[in-house]
Amino acid sequence: MTAGGHPDELEAIALLERLLPKAPPGETWIGDDAAVLSRSSGRLLLASDCLVEGVHFDRALSSLADVGWKSLAVNLSDVAAMAGTPTAAVVAVAGGSLEDLERIYEGMVEAAQRYGCPVVGGDLSAGSALVISVAILGHVPAGRPVLRSGARPGDALFVTGPLGRSAAGLRALRDGHPAAALAGAHRRPLPRLQEGRAAAAAGAGAMIDVSDGLALDLDRLASASGVGIVLDEVPVWPGATLADALFGGEDFELVFAAPDPAAVAAAFRASSLRAPVQIGRCSGDRTERLLAGSPLAVEGYVHRLG
Amino acid sequence: MTAGGHPDELEAIALLERLLPKAPPGETWIGDDAAVLSRSSGRLLLASDCLVEGVHFDRALSSLADVGWKSLAVNLSDVAAMAGTPTAAVVAVAGGSLEDLERIYEGMVEAAQRYGCPVVGGDLSAGSALVISVAILGHVPAGRPVLRSGARPGDALFVTGPLGRSAAGLRALRDGHPAAALAGAHRRPLPRLQEGRAAAAAGAGAMIDVSDGLALDLDRLASASGVGIVLDEVPVWPGATLADALFGGEDFELVFAAPDPAAVAAAFRASSLRAPVQIGRCSGDRTERLLAGSPLAVEGYVHRLG
Repeated sequence: MTAGGHPDELEAIALLERLLPKAPPGETWIGDDAAVLSRSSGRLLLASDCLVEGVHFDRALSSLADVGWKSLAVNLSDVAAMAGTPTAAVVAVAGGSLEDLERIYEGMVEAAQRYGCPVVGGDLSAGSALVISVAILGHVPAGRPVLRSGARPGDALFVTGPLGRSAAGLRALRDGHPAAALAGAHRRPLPRLQEGRAAAAAGAGAMIDVSDGLALDLDRLASASGVGIVLDEVPVWPGATLADALFGGEDFELVFAAPDPAAVAAAFRASSLRAPVQIGRCSGDRTERLLAGSPLAVEGYVHRLG
Repeated sequence: MTAGGHPDELEAIALLERLLPKAPPGETWIGDDAAVLSRSSGRLLLASDCLVEGVHFDRALSSLADVGWKSLAVNLSDVAAMAGTPTAAVVAVAGGSLEDLERIYEGMVEAAQRYGCPVVGGDLSAGSALVISVAILGHVPAGRPVLRSGARPGDALFVTGPLGRSAAGLRALRDGHPAAALAGAHRRPLPRLQEGRAAAAAGAGAMIDVSDGLALDLDRLASASGVGIVLDEVPVWPGATLADALFGGEDFELVFAAPDPAAVAAAFRASSLRAPVQIGRCSGDRTERLLAGSPLAVEGYVHRLG
């Protein structure tokens, strides 16, 4: 974990926003979980996430099949956070041996089958480090994608499940005491695709997946929406700490803002999904970041560049 | 350059074909230049190609802006080889500094603007080696994508331009005598998008881009189609050798098979494109690989895995 707002990554994103052209009306390009592209029939989503050995995974702690699962799961989570449905993925692997590739693809195909997102192509290359780059195409067949930017003051904030499991699992793995449930969550995160669509059906105005920690990802949602964040209480997974839940990242639960808690409960019930937990609300003071009345540190897991 | 049919890559592709599910009717997944996905309005194309420092480029010979251009251009070439039109790309960069990133994106945005393919998102990561992974979404608005597998005995074979320029350019760069025209072709290849669509309009049954050398890429087309290859003569770029043209790779010209040379000439003329060069024909003996009556070695540039 490094301090939030690591200048390299923030500067890098600012640089890309400066260098790349602006999206036309009705489309969203960089700055959200996936790009939104207009099509005559519904919207397309396009996103990419890579896992780098030594940065995102350690072969001593996760099998390459787990890494394969995770490489697709983190992309599926980006589609989930837009209220989308995955269509297909392409995968580029650099620097793996044939045996590595077989393990990686075994886990990836398991995730592909479970979530109905076939791997339809890609690229293989030599390289001095193992890098797995997945790009995912998704769609929003009816309705609209849920961006990060649509939260309004007064909206209730929800999370789709208790947090901190992945960070606690990673710590247990590093300590040599892998508690199965926690370690499993770190190794094989479950993207919340159905939950994302239920949130959209319930009128969610903004949504993001918890990839870098609740505090940092909520700050991104609040900054994109121009609202403040007032949290009452955050659900912590048994065995995890509050710090794990706030700053740990990689839980891949969804956080969303919606105006009507009753509609949220009804939409999740209609889809036979576990009810999301209301954790607070959005305020009109865009600088506000509070948890139980105290300032909430905006930090989390930010990968260092270069 | 390594011997063609390097077992690692062939084994790796066979492994993926075994592990991944089969595409449904009307779709094509792995094994071609881009995946073809059915949509109610036209077909989508999805492809991915990565460039790895030390494998695909050398900073001493190409600027990172050139590498950025090339990283998008090689993906555009995959769309061109399907007779498609690019829609958008996402880019994951691992292991670059902020300055590296700026240079890479400068060149990539130039290519994006020139070919009308916006970069709409992606991912940034730390890493011990610079890896640029691009995934591209394209479409075939009317008509059909041109696969590798539709060549028939008797079809004429065409190439969209003289070959060997990139290999000769790389050699000149390594020798410290960069002839501008040759080196430029190595550093900033030009994907043949209009040519790909003209070939489809002319009835091309099979097409591939020359990324790994004419001999190897034609062998892929012939193997996928179940035809033989009988070449009369291959156009060689001034300053390049016949070996550069046959085995050099990275020219990113298109090679295609079409039954009616007059239709090909007319389609390229109608699009104000340089006429493609007829280099030979497809035969009914699927094992035949001939150039001017002599056996054609099937070798080219194959990246070593792991």
